[in-house]
Amino acid sequence: MSEIDPQQLAERCAKAMFEQDQASQKLGMKIESVAPGRAELSMTVTEDMIQGHGSCHGGYLFTLADSAFAFSCNTYDKRTVASGCSIDYVYGASLGDRLIATAEEQSRGGRTGVYDITLTNQDGATVALFRGKSYQVRGSVIDSEEQS
Amino acid sequence: MSEIDPQQLAERCAKAMFEQDQASQKLGMKIESVAPGRAELSMTVTEDMIQGHGSCHGGYLFTLADSAFAFSCNTYDKRTVASGCSIDYVYGASLGDRLIATAEEQSRGGRTGVYDITLTNQDGATVALFRGKSYQVRGSVIDSEEQS
Amino acid sequence: MSEIDPQQLAERCAKAMFEQDQASQKLGMKIESVAPGRAELSMTVTEDMIQGHGSCHGGYLFTLADSAFAFSCNTYDKRTVASGCSIDYVYGASLGDRLIATAEEQSRGGRTGVYDITLTNQDGATVALFRGKSYQVRGSVIDSEEQS
Amino acid sequence: MSEIDPQQLAERCAKAMFEQDQASQKLGMKIESVAPGRAELSMTVTEDMIQGHGSCHGGYLFTLADSAFAFSCNTYDKRTVASGCSIDYVYGASLGDRLIATAEEQSRGGRTGVYDITLTNQDGATVALFRGKSYQVRGSVIDSEEQS
Repeated sequence: MSEIDPQQLAERCAKAMFEQDQASQKLGMKIESVAPGRAELSMTVTEDMIQGHGSCHGGYLFTLADSAFAFSCNTYDKRTVASGCSIDYVYGASLGDRLIATAEEQSRGGRTGVYDITLTNQDGATVALFRGKSYQVRGSVIDSEEQS
Repeated sequence: MSEIDPQQLAERCAKAMFEQDQASQKLGMKIESVAPGRAELSMTVTEDMIQGHGSCHGGYLFTLADSAFAFSCNTYDKRTVASGCSIDYVYGASLGDRLIATAEEQSRGGRTGVYDITLTNQDGATVALFRGKSYQVRGSVIDSEEQS
Repeated sequence: MSEIDPQQLAERCAKAMFEQDQASQKLGMKIESVAPGRAELSMTVTEDMIQGHGSCHGGYLFTLADSAFAFSCNTYDKRTVASGCSIDYVYGASLGDRLIATAEEQSRGGRTGVYDITLTNQDGATVALFRGKSYQVRGSVIDSEEQS
Repeated sequence: MSEIDPQQLAERCAKAMFEQDQASQKLGMKIESVAPGRAELSMTVTEDMIQGHGSCHGGYLFTLADSAFAFSCNTYDKRTVASGCSIDYVYGASLGDRLIATAEEQSRGGRTGVYDITLTNQDGATVALFRGKSYQVRGSVIDSEEQS
């Protein structure tokens, strides 16, 4: 892989992961951009995501942020999983809202990393702030996806 | 509501919330039990929940725990929302796993509360540990659901 | 207070708080700068802060970050307290290290806010990442400090 | 170490750690009890711990909980450090309050673990809820302390 540049590698990792990621696909997520340690995903709130108080279930806000987190920390072709995450809700999301999750690496060293994901809506309002802790396991992103 | 006992109230709240909660219904969640400050929900991991590394997307583990959290903190007929949550992953979940989320109130005072949700699989193994912070807003659980 | 500009108000709040804050003073913390929604504090790791594994006790890393959080969210002369915080450790701190905590507001609306605090050492290495959730209570920062 | 029983090992680990832990000693912490995966520590709120709003600085609540966490996850003679922690404040602590931190293991597998620490005051009221994530590094607790 030494001949590939970091940006190309990040894009190939994202493509390989997304092809296998039925969960993110079924929710209508779209990868808007990806770069080393970064990813931007979008998703529209559908009726299936509405919960008991009439707004988008926090689980789907989390899921979008979590996918952006996964794509951003797997841009180096080192298979990396989440060890833990936290989310703080700032503003509710409603049916039809177009949400953007922007993931940025805050630190990465040894096998662990910290990533911040900001969730905004179509008006630019912050909907939620997510922080994910990553842990690098064995294996490659591109090859493991191609093999499985 | 003074004539109703706390257990009956908890059950009525859960029934009212679940009827409106398309998200939890669509995911096949089932309320196993509910009591004041407590709730137990179950869900089976389906193909739509599988992500890029071949296991259940963390977002769906979170969503199940988050629903159990919502049901447990809305057992007093005081409309209550999540302000923030954290999850720590302990053990992966795979296609077909039957997951149980058990929510227990750790503290409740003023308008805020802290709830711990343990996610286990069909073998009793701990899959994830979730902590939710609740915030009581205006309104009733039962009436707001009936009105909307 | 309408005649005072936001920067002056932030500085007056910080001065009033620091005078009463024996904890931060005793630990040798110094306010490097303050601005609306922002604060930068420094502290040197002393022998009293060393714990069982020979490095700085995580509690003191937390305490420095927590003070920077408190100063940053109290820059509007609205008395504000922490509701919860999290910290992720990135790199150890040792005896004599000069630590800087930089607090930045991520969101603020209604009575709640989210603040991110980055802890770095004298070499610019990230030591820890802290996220604080604030809650605005009744009262003024400047007056309450002067009265007490 | 095969001849030692788990309870004795936990006690020896705690003794070795505490002797080196200047931070916990200087704050007047006392180990009330220790057992495999568990620890109970106490501390009295002193004037040096008071912050800008007149109550105990959250950093000292965190530090007590963090020490109880460290003692509980180092009871197996496997050197273990914190990777991240979160705290939720429930009730303020004031000058002279006698605080108890009770740490309990929630999960432990591979090199990581999750521990919950409850902070209570002399009246049994919950002051804060702390969750710590541990990471086992190389080395022994007892030997590393004796060597250093």
